[in-house]
Amino acid sequence: MLERMATTSLPVLFGRVPGVNEGDTFSSRQALYNAKVHRSLQAGIAGGAREGADSIVMSGGYPDDRECGDVILYTGHGGRGSNGAQVRDQNWSSPGNAGLVLTSALRKPLRVIKGLAIKRGKATGGYRYEGLYHIVDFWKVSGKEGFQICQFELHKLHGDEESIPPPRPRPVIETEAEQRVRRLVAAREEPARDLRIVQRVKELYRDTCQMCRARVVVAPEGQAFSNCAHIKALGRPYDGPDILENVLCLCPNCHIRFDRGALQITDDFQVIDTLEGRKFADLYRVGEHHIDVQYLGSHRSRWPGRMEAWLTGPN
Amino acid sequence: MLERMATTSLPVLFGRVPGVNEGDTFSSRQALYNAKVHRSLQAGIAGGAREGADSIVMSGGYPDDRECGDVILYTGHGGRGSNGAQVRDQNWSSPGNAGLVLTSALRKPLRVIKGLAIKRGKATGGYRYEGLYHIVDFWKVSGKEGFQICQFELHKLHGDEESIPPPRPRPVIETEAEQRVRRLVAAREEPARDLRIVQRVKELYRDTCQMCRARVVVAPEGQAFSNCAHIKALGRPYDGPDILENVLCLCPNCHIRFDRGALQITDDFQVIDTLEGRKFADLYRVGEHHIDVQYLGSHRSRWPGRMEAWLTGPN
Repeated sequence: MLERMATTSLPVLFGRVPGVNEGDTFSSRQALYNAKVHRSLQAGIAGGAREGADSIVMSGGYPDDRECGDVILYTGHGGRGSNGAQVRDQNWSSPGNAGLVLTSALRKPLRVIKGLAIKRGKATGGYRYEGLYHIVDFWKVSGKEGFQICQFELHKLHGDEESIPPPRPRPVIETEAEQRVRRLVAAREEPARDLRIVQRVKELYRDTCQMCRARVVVAPEGQAFSNCAHIKALGRPYDGPDILENVLCLCPNCHIRFDRGALQITDDFQVIDTLEGRKFADLYRVGEHHIDVQYLGSHRSRWPGRMEAWLTGPN
Repeated sequence: MLERMATTSLPVLFGRVPGVNEGDTFSSRQALYNAKVHRSLQAGIAGGAREGADSIVMSGGYPDDRECGDVILYTGHGGRGSNGAQVRDQNWSSPGNAGLVLTSALRKPLRVIKGLAIKRGKATGGYRYEGLYHIVDFWKVSGKEGFQICQFELHKLHGDEESIPPPRPRPVIETEAEQRVRRLVAAREEPARDLRIVQRVKELYRDTCQMCRARVVVAPEGQAFSNCAHIKALGRPYDGPDILENVLCLCPNCHIRFDRGALQITDDFQVIDTLEGRKFADLYRVGEHHIDVQYLGSHRSRWPGRMEAWLTGPN
């Protein structure tokens, strides 16, 4: 399957490529690249967050892609395993997705290229240049494969490149004052997390909850959903570190109970239900995962008194 | 306990009130109001999203409030039940909380008033004006009572009112391009949801999951956490309605499996595990909750084929 990520060395060039007309065909990705129609030999989306994306190649294999007349629903990049199936959620910070978001805001056109004679996500009959589209809207949805995907609504551009309207407005049910407050709060949101740590802890436990051992299966191939939970919380006022020694792999239900102090962990890795005053489980750990007990203590200290009996009494 | 919501008829007035000095005491809320020190007879936070908040009254009863020298950690408004305990998460859109966010952004000072001789969250010895503070930072945390609270860090203002620095900067680990994309995406986020619908469905089921019947208990008094799940999804591309007939009360684990199509619901309210091809449960419903089956069909149609056997065959 075609990777939809974006790496390129040619500069961004929005709009028509001089000398290339709608319906022109190309024998290979190399031919597309040489003609400057698509600036990447591998990626399905050419471009990134810095400059925007100027073209896409559609070669099938994305079950949530749709076409209806002049409208295309295009699935973004990311979260696919080596066999081409979706195995994780997509996110907006992937270069290709970020590039399309910026292209939309800049009201720039997008060149659309389609693979011909698609077989198992490969174009076996070359490529055709389909002309210019503009990005009308974008959103996240749960895709058919059970994971969140970024989706872009593209409309064929019939007028001039200068005539692209702003992205479709969203219904606003807030007052101006409420919007302003929401923006002020958003500007102070947590710093982005290190996605490598998130992925590493999920892989170590194969998305199995370290507390209740549940695997929340969401996809036909058995892929599961889990949370990467910080023990000493990220951000103000705790400022816990974003490292493997400070994270757990939890199911959403245990995660919320851990974050609210209903479940806490002793230094010998017993999980305690602090509301019922009983041991809930032994924390499931794999050998490669060193958990630093100082963070367990920091977590417990947020709810003074609750764990007294477990920490001092003879258990 | 003092309600921290904000309603007032006097106009906002930031800073010192002429004729009122630090340490001045007042016999009652009415006396504070008459002196224009605190523009509300009931609310702990005077002001809202439109104009900002100009004063707060602290009368105890908020277990996450803290004082240390010139620094106060102040808990925002909302989510408290009639007995004064936290029963729900707080949010930034509560008028008082929104008012404090705006005051911080405007770099305006905040008058702080303390209740004296606090007994069970009531000031039995009058009130004292503590002087001016500024809002250095704000965040959400899980409070001691098991729910998310909005928290504000206030520092006593020693210099001039004009000398208030901007809110504490957050560490930025994104590039400028990444920040821009994040803002563009945030601007297209889902429209705010009707919190009355959210609250109503949670109350109907006492936060019990309609699928697995779990109650995810998070607080010592037995309060639980649940999700209000839309059947036909809100926002693009589905545009499901934000009404009681289109929502379920679910635990986080069943919610994610429902949103990803791993769990689906027949028109006679059987919950099907579509990945294992077996019935998971009968959907738990209470009499007052009418679920419109058209939305169940709309949800199923997002994963064509998966429910075939359950909808056509003899079950």
